[in-house]
Amino acid sequence: MTRQELIQQIKEKKTFLCVGLDTDLKKIPEHLLKDEDPIFAFNKAIIDATAPYCVAYKPNLAFYEAFGVKGIISFEKTIKYLNDNYPKHFIIADAKRGDIGNTSAMYARTFFEEYNLDALTVAPYMGEDSVSPFLTYEGKWVILLALTSNKGSFDFQQTTDTEGERLFEKVIKRSQQWGNDENMMYVVGATRGEMFKDIRKVAPTHFLLVPGIGAQGGSLEDVCKYGMLKDDCGLLVNSSRAIIYADKTENFAAAAAQEAKKVAEQMAALL
Amino acid sequence: MTRQELIQQIKEKKTFLCVGLDTDLKKIPEHLLKDEDPIFAFNKAIIDATAPYCVAYKPNLAFYEAFGVKGIISFEKTIKYLNDNYPKHFIIADAKRGDIGNTSAMYARTFFEEYNLDALTVAPYMGEDSVSPFLTYEGKWVILLALTSNKGSFDFQQTTDTEGERLFEKVIKRSQQWGNDENMMYVVGATRGEMFKDIRKVAPTHFLLVPGIGAQGGSLEDVCKYGMLKDDCGLLVNSSRAIIYADKTENFAAAAAQEAKKVAEQMAALL
Repeated sequence: MTRQELIQQIKEKKTFLCVGLDTDLKKIPEHLLKDEDPIFAFNKAIIDATAPYCVAYKPNLAFYEAFGVKGIISFEKTIKYLNDNYPKHFIIADAKRGDIGNTSAMYARTFFEEYNLDALTVAPYMGEDSVSPFLTYEGKWVILLALTSNKGSFDFQQTTDTEGERLFEKVIKRSQQWGNDENMMYVVGATRGEMFKDIRKVAPTHFLLVPGIGAQGGSLEDVCKYGMLKDDCGLLVNSSRAIIYADKTENFAAAAAQEAKKVAEQMAALL
Repeated sequence: MTRQELIQQIKEKKTFLCVGLDTDLKKIPEHLLKDEDPIFAFNKAIIDATAPYCVAYKPNLAFYEAFGVKGIISFEKTIKYLNDNYPKHFIIADAKRGDIGNTSAMYARTFFEEYNLDALTVAPYMGEDSVSPFLTYEGKWVILLALTSNKGSFDFQQTTDTEGERLFEKVIKRSQQWGNDENMMYVVGATRGEMFKDIRKVAPTHFLLVPGIGAQGGSLEDVCKYGMLKDDCGLLVNSSRAIIYADKTENFAAAAAQEAKKVAEQMAALL
């Protein structure tokens, strides 16, 4: 999906919500466990219920890989279901990959060609040749970790170098030599509030993928106040647990829709 | 596997070779493609041929994930074959994972409990809470990316901070507050030669996983000269392509054994 198509979806639907499909067998409603493929059954119901209120889905690979072959089957079925039924939704594999060139090229082929996903999260630690193999696919995106939502983001990401640049700023600036605002986004945690101002100094036009509202406690208002672009929105704000586990009964899908709708309404007001 | 057990294996077999199982359908001998599971057939033959000359195997997950469910089945069969037949070999999943705490915990469960692997490579960018969930399993290891073998390692890993520390040094020092030399190793590329001296200043006792000899051009002599520990060796040196693709005919396994033996003999002389 191109940047223009994504912006158009956001404007039409008045939402920039991304629903995270972090599907955990321990947290889904008990009655689904009788299903042949409980993870896919849960995802399908969540997708159908929340699709009107979001523009993107983000399955986190870890939750599928944790169940070996069975989990990968559930992942592939989920992706196929999205591709077949919701082609206008932007699909992100949250995989945080990044390896030497020939390996990153393998990952790119898998996620972009085999699964036809729109975007993949990538870790920047190994530098250009670990990222650039993902940038050769038209209409496909790298979403590079910049300033994450977790406590550990203070360990290295905020280290200041001898030129006065923090590591996350260096990642953002340097990576703009490899890609542009039509094939690269950055992950910035919603818990970072005012730091979105600093992010926008170095990434004035790029889309940001923002996890950390909901269970992790970030503020949607702050994210928009400091991070939103005037015309193009420039934000995909993710919520996983607060939406998909809003209810543990047979009413789970309607409850998830309700939560997604609530967030979407806040977003419409902020747009 | 504990540190003492690993050191004992190295001393008994007089080798610290790790064979990388980066199995690529495009590179394996053509006659294997007729097999029901060509990747596993290749791995099994390579493992049986090289086991006497190495102490570790390192399948790179990307090469398996690239083939979806089929690839994961090949991976699981390879791991089971190693666990059943070569329990004294140290098995590393080269996955370069690292995510927020609840996700890293999922990965830890998969790789250490479900697959019973000895070690997992982890990317440090997200800091402590992305790494520490892997450190709670007795006899299991995190192998943290420090100074990688690729060109992109110059982009961020060698950035000097305001305290005069390079990022890879900071990663090594800071992570020693989370783990110790009995549950953590570091990835340092063989192409870094004299920089092993700097590594040993900040990681004087830790094992290092060293990719980059063979196809990537690093020197085994330099790695040992600057990186080897006096009594405990402290090195696992990986070779993938130069060993497993030594020959593309039906003679491939014997050729791989020949290559592995050659490297092991060099290692015995250096120990």
